[in-house]
Amino acid sequence: MNVQKVIQTINKQTENGISEVYLVACGGSLVDMYPSKYFLDSEARKIVGGLYTANEFVHALPKRLNKDSVVIVCSHGGNTPESVEAAKTAKEQGAHTIGLTHNREAALLKYSDHSFIYEWGEESDVKNNPMAIIMELTVEILNTTEGYAAYEAFQSGLNKIGGIINSGKLLVAERAQAFADKYKNEDLFYILSSGASYGHAYGFAICSLMEMQWLNASSIHSGEYFHGPFEVTDKETPFILLMNEGRTRALDERARIFLNQYAGKVEIVDAKELGINTIADEVVEFFNPVLFYSILCVYRETLAEVRNHPLETRRYMGKVAY
Amino acid sequence: MNVQKVIQTINKQTENGISEVYLVACGGSLVDMYPSKYFLDSEARKIVGGLYTANEFVHALPKRLNKDSVVIVCSHGGNTPESVEAAKTAKEQGAHTIGLTHNREAALLKYSDHSFIYEWGEESDVKNNPMAIIMELTVEILNTTEGYAAYEAFQSGLNKIGGIINSGKLLVAERAQAFADKYKNEDLFYILSSGASYGHAYGFAICSLMEMQWLNASSIHSGEYFHGPFEVTDKETPFILLMNEGRTRALDERARIFLNQYAGKVEIVDAKELGINTIADEVVEFFNPVLFYSILCVYRETLAEVRNHPLETRRYMGKVAY
Repeated sequence: MNVQKVIQTINKQTENGISEVYLVACGGSLVDMYPSKYFLDSEARKIVGGLYTANEFVHALPKRLNKDSVVIVCSHGGNTPESVEAAKTAKEQGAHTIGLTHNREAALLKYSDHSFIYEWGEESDVKNNPMAIIMELTVEILNTTEGYAAYEAFQSGLNKIGGIINSGKLLVAERAQAFADKYKNEDLFYILSSGASYGHAYGFAICSLMEMQWLNASSIHSGEYFHGPFEVTDKETPFILLMNEGRTRALDERARIFLNQYAGKVEIVDAKELGINTIADEVVEFFNPVLFYSILCVYRETLAEVRNHPLETRRYMGKVAY
Repeated sequence: MNVQKVIQTINKQTENGISEVYLVACGGSLVDMYPSKYFLDSEARKIVGGLYTANEFVHALPKRLNKDSVVIVCSHGGNTPESVEAAKTAKEQGAHTIGLTHNREAALLKYSDHSFIYEWGEESDVKNNPMAIIMELTVEILNTTEGYAAYEAFQSGLNKIGGIINSGKLLVAERAQAFADKYKNEDLFYILSSGASYGHAYGFAICSLMEMQWLNASSIHSGEYFHGPFEVTDKETPFILLMNEGRTRALDERARIFLNQYAGKVEIVDAKELGINTIADEVVEFFNPVLFYSILCVYRETLAEVRNHPLETRRYMGKVAY
């Protein structure tokens, strides 16, 4: 499917242009929507963005949802019951649905007016992964309805991020190995970030560490860290800080200074050092999470190997009833 | 100050009526704003709600912010630099600011067009605490600008919640003691909830446990639990589940069933059992967090006593430079 064509088609079908974008999913797919929510909250003057874990969307449906709303639902396997139900509910309310999945036979497709069967895996281009497609859809909606001054800069960023990731992965390979060797016996990690990347701090905690490694983990917003969470900081507790380039870097910098003084186990992943600055200043912040996801995949793979706990191992997910 | 009068005054000063409500604070004060954000996301058809940790608001100011926006800023001590800066920034953009604080000499008041010096402490009526005042302001804005069908039911709920809390506290006193005795040696807790109460799951984690007890903690949305986090569940890891009454109860129920089967250390705080149902169905869900905050204060006080770690003890906050 073509992003521009889909958005133009939907926009023509609305009465007064698209007025809301609801981003609805669960777990890792919801994480991939966070940058788009942050983008809309930051850049939109009229369009309203909403981010919902699917079951909350279904049970506490926003009254704002209407025939001019777009509901984007993403489910990797395409059959997550809450996500399928969310798309069904959205359609029942007359909203326009866009479904994203990696599965051509997905139940989600039954309730998707438009759909994207995305690429996945080591060999795929991040441009064709759900996080980038959802961002592209969101940027397209903003540009179509109210205009977006940095539209060209964003498109250019999309074409650059894959190359930045490839260089970045080589750059962190040794560090990821050192990280895994050093922290293989830890059972808790805090992940800090801000801005567009906060969702990926959350994602690394809940998907990569809790789900895939059965390790305790929690995300902390770099700005919130100083208003409670920092009291657990000591020389023994491990922190991973994802440093953004862009407007919220100041928040991450402040956390780094504090961690360097009071923590003893700190791993820093710095988007600036990894070369993200070839992307234009006015849009670079939105690409931090795309870079972080791929870089953190190197970290989690190395950690999984050293811990001898394959990333695919589950005890409940898809194995027991819930 | 009078909530109705403040909102009427602001609304008259706008060009087309209030169009946005930004809720901006840090840590515990931000937690107290979450129910209002949830309320707006759920109930509003036109008004747009935004929830920001103050430093992110300052550094990544939303383009939507305008002369018809209301920015509510809350700071208990009233001098949190990021929160003061947020109010200043909002005023510079021409927005209307409402400041809430417990300190009559607060720097925040310099940048607050309207202000509420709220009550605090064991003896105060929850109606006069910041969470309830912010909800009242938000409900008043919705009712003034686009109407809110359950306005009377909400006001009636405000008058009932204090009594429900008083009975609830007596009901949990023994359980809180048993909880503290049983879990006094744990060093990690997960707090689950959904809907309007998710913010207070986060708040209990970051303020009550991390800040006040130097214990590791993390909040998990009951809906998200099944999409990653539940893989850490075992007989040894403690979970606290805050069960809402209202539309998202189904999400909490599902978590309870799973926890009862696979976890070994589960504490349930159930708003329904604590008697919240005397509040009308159409608004009861918004009062869950008001109840949970007060009930969890009993838990944290008991835990602090048993652990011999007073709630006021800090090692960094207000003690070192950051």
